[in-house]
Amino acid sequence: MDVGVGIVGYGLMAKAHTFGYRNASAFGSLAAKPKVVAMSGRNPVALAAAAALYGVPDTTSDWRTLLDRDDVDVIDICTPPGTHAEIAIAAAAAGKAVICEKPLAASFADALAATRAVEDSGVANAVGFNYRRLPALALLQRLIADGRIGRVLTWHATWYTDEFADPEIPFDWRFDLAMGASTFADLGSHLIDLALTQVGPVDAVSAQTQTTIAERSGQAVTVPESCSALLRFASGASGVIDLARNAVGRPCDFVVDVSGTEGSLRFDYARLNELWFSHIDDDPELYGPRRIRAEHTTHPYSANWWPIGQGVGYGSSFVNQVVAWFAEWPPKTWDPDFAQGTRVQAICDAMERSSLSDHWEQVPTFDLNPANKL
Amino acid sequence: MDVGVGIVGYGLMAKAHTFGYRNASAFGSLAAKPKVVAMSGRNPVALAAAAALYGVPDTTSDWRTLLDRDDVDVIDICTPPGTHAEIAIAAAAAGKAVICEKPLAASFADALAATRAVEDSGVANAVGFNYRRLPALALLQRLIADGRIGRVLTWHATWYTDEFADPEIPFDWRFDLAMGASTFADLGSHLIDLALTQVGPVDAVSAQTQTTIAERSGQAVTVPESCSALLRFASGASGVIDLARNAVGRPCDFVVDVSGTEGSLRFDYARLNELWFSHIDDDPELYGPRRIRAEHTTHPYSANWWPIGQGVGYGSSFVNQVVAWFAEWPPKTWDPDFAQGTRVQAICDAMERSSLSDHWEQVPTFDLNPANKL
Amino acid sequence: MDVGVGIVGYGLMAKAHTFGYRNASAFGSLAAKPKVVAMSGRNPVALAAAAALYGVPDTTSDWRTLLDRDDVDVIDICTPPGTHAEIAIAAAAAGKAVICEKPLAASFADALAATRAVEDSGVANAVGFNYRRLPALALLQRLIADGRIGRVLTWHATWYTDEFADPEIPFDWRFDLAMGASTFADLGSHLIDLALTQVGPVDAVSAQTQTTIAERSGQAVTVPESCSALLRFASGASGVIDLARNAVGRPCDFVVDVSGTEGSLRFDYARLNELWFSHIDDDPELYGPRRIRAEHTTHPYSANWWPIGQGVGYGSSFVNQVVAWFAEWPPKTWDPDFAQGTRVQAICDAMERSSLSDHWEQVPTFDLNPANKL
Amino acid sequence: MDVGVGIVGYGLMAKAHTFGYRNASAFGSLAAKPKVVAMSGRNPVALAAAAALYGVPDTTSDWRTLLDRDDVDVIDICTPPGTHAEIAIAAAAAGKAVICEKPLAASFADALAATRAVEDSGVANAVGFNYRRLPALALLQRLIADGRIGRVLTWHATWYTDEFADPEIPFDWRFDLAMGASTFADLGSHLIDLALTQVGPVDAVSAQTQTTIAERSGQAVTVPESCSALLRFASGASGVIDLARNAVGRPCDFVVDVSGTEGSLRFDYARLNELWFSHIDDDPELYGPRRIRAEHTTHPYSANWWPIGQGVGYGSSFVNQVVAWFAEWPPKTWDPDFAQGTRVQAICDAMERSSLSDHWEQVPTFDLNPANKL
Repeated sequence: MDVGVGIVGYGLMAKAHTFGYRNASAFGSLAAKPKVVAMSGRNPVALAAAAALYGVPDTTSDWRTLLDRDDVDVIDICTPPGTHAEIAIAAAAAGKAVICEKPLAASFADALAATRAVEDSGVANAVGFNYRRLPALALLQRLIADGRIGRVLTWHATWYTDEFADPEIPFDWRFDLAMGASTFADLGSHLIDLALTQVGPVDAVSAQTQTTIAERSGQAVTVPESCSALLRFASGASGVIDLARNAVGRPCDFVVDVSGTEGSLRFDYARLNELWFSHIDDDPELYGPRRIRAEHTTHPYSANWWPIGQGVGYGSSFVNQVVAWFAEWPPKTWDPDFAQGTRVQAICDAMERSSLSDHWEQVPTFDLNPANKL
Repeated sequence: MDVGVGIVGYGLMAKAHTFGYRNASAFGSLAAKPKVVAMSGRNPVALAAAAALYGVPDTTSDWRTLLDRDDVDVIDICTPPGTHAEIAIAAAAAGKAVICEKPLAASFADALAATRAVEDSGVANAVGFNYRRLPALALLQRLIADGRIGRVLTWHATWYTDEFADPEIPFDWRFDLAMGASTFADLGSHLIDLALTQVGPVDAVSAQTQTTIAERSGQAVTVPESCSALLRFASGASGVIDLARNAVGRPCDFVVDVSGTEGSLRFDYARLNELWFSHIDDDPELYGPRRIRAEHTTHPYSANWWPIGQGVGYGSSFVNQVVAWFAEWPPKTWDPDFAQGTRVQAICDAMERSSLSDHWEQVPTFDLNPANKL
Repeated sequence: MDVGVGIVGYGLMAKAHTFGYRNASAFGSLAAKPKVVAMSGRNPVALAAAAALYGVPDTTSDWRTLLDRDDVDVIDICTPPGTHAEIAIAAAAAGKAVICEKPLAASFADALAATRAVEDSGVANAVGFNYRRLPALALLQRLIADGRIGRVLTWHATWYTDEFADPEIPFDWRFDLAMGASTFADLGSHLIDLALTQVGPVDAVSAQTQTTIAERSGQAVTVPESCSALLRFASGASGVIDLARNAVGRPCDFVVDVSGTEGSLRFDYARLNELWFSHIDDDPELYGPRRIRAEHTTHPYSANWWPIGQGVGYGSSFVNQVVAWFAEWPPKTWDPDFAQGTRVQAICDAMERSSLSDHWEQVPTFDLNPANKL
Repeated sequence: MDVGVGIVGYGLMAKAHTFGYRNASAFGSLAAKPKVVAMSGRNPVALAAAAALYGVPDTTSDWRTLLDRDDVDVIDICTPPGTHAEIAIAAAAAGKAVICEKPLAASFADALAATRAVEDSGVANAVGFNYRRLPALALLQRLIADGRIGRVLTWHATWYTDEFADPEIPFDWRFDLAMGASTFADLGSHLIDLALTQVGPVDAVSAQTQTTIAERSGQAVTVPESCSALLRFASGASGVIDLARNAVGRPCDFVVDVSGTEGSLRFDYARLNELWFSHIDDDPELYGPRRIRAEHTTHPYSANWWPIGQGVGYGSSFVNQVVAWFAEWPPKTWDPDFAQGTRVQAICDAMERSSLSDHWEQVPTFDLNPANKL
């Protein structure tokens, strides 16, 4: 059975999502096979070129027309964060399932509005936190869930890139808070999604930000390049997050350290096929962590990929999320859903507020509406 | 323009090759778009399942029928090594372009016969030495070609896997020398292909092999699990190769070290997006190698992939070779071609002979036939 | 010329300090040669055993008697933090130069009192922040001072150990805040010393702590095992520090990341002879950090050690600080001195207060007394 | 009890050996405490300077006078390899215990002569294969002896340095085969000592060498910079060794890989406190090697060193061998002794011959003389 997908946007994320759709059936067992039937964008030349590269048969300059097509079952939103909520709300109103790139929105309010919209319409909804689909990170989550490190005590994550290091980079939407979202939301939302799945809810945060280059192309930059925060988890665990987009020579170095009463785990994206694990009962003569090669057939997503040791890359995360979302059809629920995207955004919201205040800020809470169809 | 591909075999290599065909147009600029039109295999149930997974529309139990199809322009051989030559010769005779998984054959004689066949028929021909398509290894080759390490003095490569470590693995064709080829040819051919491109021709070798588990499922194992060799390059450089398929806990650890008069390079497959480089004129205060992240837009194959730092995996090598082969159509020549596959096999042949004799063995040479159409 | 040293305490730090005195003249050029003439401690059997191991000729059960000896020029304090100030003040009053293990005290008030005492008496004074003596960390500092990474923007440090992971470890002074000092002061003081030398003064901090095991041997544990803080430097740079003493399988993993407008640096104690460096003008084709082997003859402390590549260990830091302190005699000033120790303690103090309040705390400042002899 | 040591030579090895003597009692339990009483050398100015640095009280321009001193119990030979045998033979004749830096001699014949001399006189004798004293390498050896990797199948070692990379380095004794010994003997003897202890005797070898810079300062270089060999162990195991002294940017990179029927081990000198270990029965979900931190109190030599995670350096190996040799006094036998040094040299001899012939060479054997006093 084929399921039609309409993609809003044609940039890097559209490239990654089409990669996922194109390859999912080769690496997993799907109940329905997604087919990208059309892609929208405002620059017709660039859109046509992208459609040719990604093998998308149809294009439109108006994303709203995708909502009217009977052959579109799923709207996949690959545009800048500031546009996500409007498109998601319209898609939900049109009764389409919605997949939205992270972050779900550029603000907590928008994220919540999008969540209310999918609740009201009862459509399946998902957010593209793709990194959790890497086998090593999925294994990390599973080892915690299986109690392998006991009760989590501390969680620590960093993400350093140099995408904003050069002051000559001209202004674009990534430097505009309302369109590109904060660095907490852009880089951080992936890590916060991981924190929530690995440790649970966050109660409060204390944060700081730093804007180094205040202006580009004569326009004010409203997105601080670097930021960091302390986290208090509801469980009593404590956390730290440190993000910078101006760290010279560091292309995409994200690291997660989780430590519990009985063990510790460490993931470093630069070695994305590996996971470090220590347990308190390890043989003392062999003291030291195991460097797990997270491609064993027993590992998440791995049974259908390459032989162990060959290694997957970034693209595999997009394949794996399609495999997860299309494993049954129609889907009952998708995971991570808009509610999760909104939980993440609530934490970003508190971080943004704390960076302006001089104190800890509570993370706003919200109830899922049980009267709604979700 | 579409080019029809018929794949012989439906196992892991067919999975990898179809991955390459499926994704090439998204990551490169193709003159013709390859379409896999049919796949052959003897087990109809497994074949049908594989075809469904890989999205191949047609299947046949007899690979020879692929040769008769007008919609097949290219025969892609993904069967065990011992079968390659016969299929390649038949494909050449049928006027089809031929892509053959490595090693080109299970013996030098067979490899040479296949080369003579493509010479005679003038069809395009290629061997699937996919690892040279990894950006980091392609960059390594480019840095040498650009003189960045001066004249190569020493070349050293190791490959350790544990695929044969467990004595309980039952006998299959990989343990049969005539079908699976030697370990020199199976693992080693990739490395020897790299040696030839990085250092040039090899004159002579001294080799040893070791068979640890002589029998499986009651059948004699004829493929030594581990082997090693010294190499004398025509340039005066010296080389070492060390291979083992019974190294516990090492899934696919291959490493290449090349050292020259002005610099050194190191590639470690476990970090396949990286390359280490030192130059003799490096600032002494910064003494130590650079760890190049081989995903810069200036790096081979990288401009059309993901942003730097995201990382590619094993699959990318298969995509990149399709991009290289279909960049122009019809192809004038393909690289690496059967002649290269035969050069590799000649070295394997000398290694196999040396492991039985007590001395160095000359690498057999052969002339490409200028009277032929190639 | 020989200089007499009396050591207060006979535990691990006495072992490390005597290692430094014993070896300094072999690895540096000294104006005076320190000789440990006596060591004090309350357990006579353990003291005698330690003195024999370390080659100390005399012992005493009362550290005050060391102050009376004419052959003691320097008092070296190797006891628990809570005892440092009293001993230092007495030593200063006796006119002895004072070397004090870090942290200078268990509180800011005590540290300041010790500083006032050495100011009043005009004796040379130093704090044993030994890690800054590692060649790689000294080189890191020099590269920053030389402008190699431009203006520092962000500073990030972590330290994970498992020394407190086992709940069965019985109570000792390390679990007593008044004697062992906080984790900010014990582990953190080394890192804060580095922060001050690498980035400059800190204005304010926001901190949190976590106590996991509240009681040992029936006694209340008053030292939280893990803690973290955000830092605002006076320069506008921002910082993060994360410390845990209950991270299973991590013996002494401390890492410092410093990022500036033109480059970045990274030090990882598990590879203490190495330093990572990227510069914004690095050749794009060689994109990626250099892994400096910090043993070149041009590197700090390295000219008189082993040939490059051989590697030094923990002990070398204690040798190097003796080399630094005894390079001239009598010393004009020592570095780092008690004032630096007090600056560090002021930051610890703010962190401790912030972990109890809900907001950022200012780092207390203090003036060096110009009327005093220092 | 003190034991007098006379050191022949005052260069780097004298610096390292005096470091060992100076520190041994602090890091181990000694039956006798070695005291370096005198040091010999032909350059009086340099000798005096070295004696001052290393704390040696007396010097002499004629090493033979050391043999006449009653306060010298042990002669420690730290001169170039070509001089070792003569000094060792004279020391044995004088009834002194002899410690000789590796390699024992510049030729098998000389090594055997030295062994016969100590046999005849019955003096204790040792060779300074210091690297085997690193905790990680001693642990590697112990894990093999304890059967942790089953029967050894393959052994592989490399050593890359850049000490000879620069063609401008003037001629010195290291480039003279008769004085400096071959690269097989200089770098390789450490590795061959490890091979013998880890795998057992070697029957035959096939080798090659390469001389890149044939002349320095107008003198012929007789020591090839790079060389490699295949090894056949008596046990049936196979080995590979690859050495280069002209590998740019690689200061002292030696690596040993040992693989057996049940596990594998890997040591990399650049991380000298670590050891990698995989076992065939490791939990598949945790597939991958342990990175052992070889400083646990249960590990060889570690109980008396620093707390785990702090790390030792090169110097520790010299301390540890003194601890081993002086643990009982007078010594019954020392390990490794001259016989072991001669076994190593026999293998070097076969490698040197094989590099000139075109075939495998048998390793010469020799009997220890049971009639002698050893």
